[in-house]
Amino acid sequence: MTGKVYLIGAGPGDPDLMTLKAIKALQAADVVLLDDLVNREILQHAPQARVIEVGKRGGCKSTPQHFINRMMVALAEQGQTVARLKGGDPFLFGRGGEEMLELRHAGIPVDVIPGITSGIAVPATIGIPVTHRAYTHGVSFVTGHLQDGEHSQNWKALAESGTTLVIYMGMKHLHRIVSELLSAGMSPTTPVAAIQNGSLPEQQHVISALEHLPMAVQQAGLASPAIIVVGEVVHLAHGKELLDSISIAA
Amino acid sequence: MTGKVYLIGAGPGDPDLMTLKAIKALQAADVVLLDDLVNREILQHAPQARVIEVGKRGGCKSTPQHFINRMMVALAEQGQTVARLKGGDPFLFGRGGEEMLELRHAGIPVDVIPGITSGIAVPATIGIPVTHRAYTHGVSFVTGHLQDGEHSQNWKALAESGTTLVIYMGMKHLHRIVSELLSAGMSPTTPVAAIQNGSLPEQQHVISALEHLPMAVQQAGLASPAIIVVGEVVHLAHGKELLDSISIAA
Repeated sequence: MTGKVYLIGAGPGDPDLMTLKAIKALQAADVVLLDDLVNREILQHAPQARVIEVGKRGGCKSTPQHFINRMMVALAEQGQTVARLKGGDPFLFGRGGEEMLELRHAGIPVDVIPGITSGIAVPATIGIPVTHRAYTHGVSFVTGHLQDGEHSQNWKALAESGTTLVIYMGMKHLHRIVSELLSAGMSPTTPVAAIQNGSLPEQQHVISALEHLPMAVQQAGLASPAIIVVGEVVHLAHGKELLDSISIAA
Repeated sequence: MTGKVYLIGAGPGDPDLMTLKAIKALQAADVVLLDDLVNREILQHAPQARVIEVGKRGGCKSTPQHFINRMMVALAEQGQTVARLKGGDPFLFGRGGEEMLELRHAGIPVDVIPGITSGIAVPATIGIPVTHRAYTHGVSFVTGHLQDGEHSQNWKALAESGTTLVIYMGMKHLHRIVSELLSAGMSPTTPVAAIQNGSLPEQQHVISALEHLPMAVQQAGLASPAIIVVGEVVHLAHGKELLDSISIAA
């Protein structure tokens, strides 16, 4: 009998930000396939399961996507219940859509279990709501890390949309992203936050004006994985009132 | 001694889509303040707590926002632990940002506990990932229900951004939203899904071309609360392959 695959969002890092549904799926799993950025503490919910690491962190040795797809299909065809754990939400970046299609084409039953996405939860940890009626009526989540041959974002339209911008995987191309937003007419003084390791004990962040973000990130020594938030809602960050009274050296 | 307030996201409706952190906060609560759209089954996690209904469903009799704010402050000043339960995520629409600021100004400790937002989880129930590398590198979440005196969305910039559009509270102004997107140059054949009561047993949805959405929604008898998804990722919906071979009467 064919097994099944749960595509599970593990949330931003804090193990308590997993859903009950995700925990029930982990408890039912024979095998867990685990991405790099998933907190290992989560495995406490699946002591019975075999764990296979299939990280794909940029630049390091990793398991190619087609191999992960084949592994999931093979395990399910053997009758196993597979928990495929991904950071954040499986359907907001993270290739969950691609994995679902592969499984669907192979005739494997698949259940998608949403996770808390970093783009909402991580700004919240420092008091930033991604929307607030006084500032904006929407938020756009975009990736700053496009592979060769992929189209770049339409930064001009994003800037003009008036939505808060939340940029995932934006640290590698930070200079370019900032200059594209400035060229698109976004004010150099737009408040911006960059937050590394969001929701974990080692979380760090900086808040600055858009034009000074690359320097602020460098001075603070921030690196990936990080979330960048661009927009007036950043004014609501805890302690921002203090920061606003200090001029940041350019 | 001052109490505290947890601003909690209850998720899209399915009680299993709450986080462990939300459940722990409910277990610690003396009082629960509950919005209309929150599933009552969630109260099983707070049998010890007093429950106060503070719904604000559009058009019905409801508790004004400033009264809810004052109530939270007063309860916390009495030393109570208050669980403020909101549908979806408290910081993506839903006025969580406003409530946090009121509490912060009053000197009340506040913890924000993110929830699964409907805009990601509800499309996932019918197999739609809000992003997929083959189609888009981002997603915009916007509200379609703006009050008098509030700026409308920049639908043209949103259409040009190339992101998937997820529209919350869009049913009331559906005709206007569709005609704005068409005027902005979006293709009339862009696939669109409207999903009512997402993640609950009574969930219903339609899939159509953008230009036919108002008619499709009317024929299916869909109403609020609903999520509207606009973009090529809608092609990935379960069973969409079948739908594509049937021409929808205009």
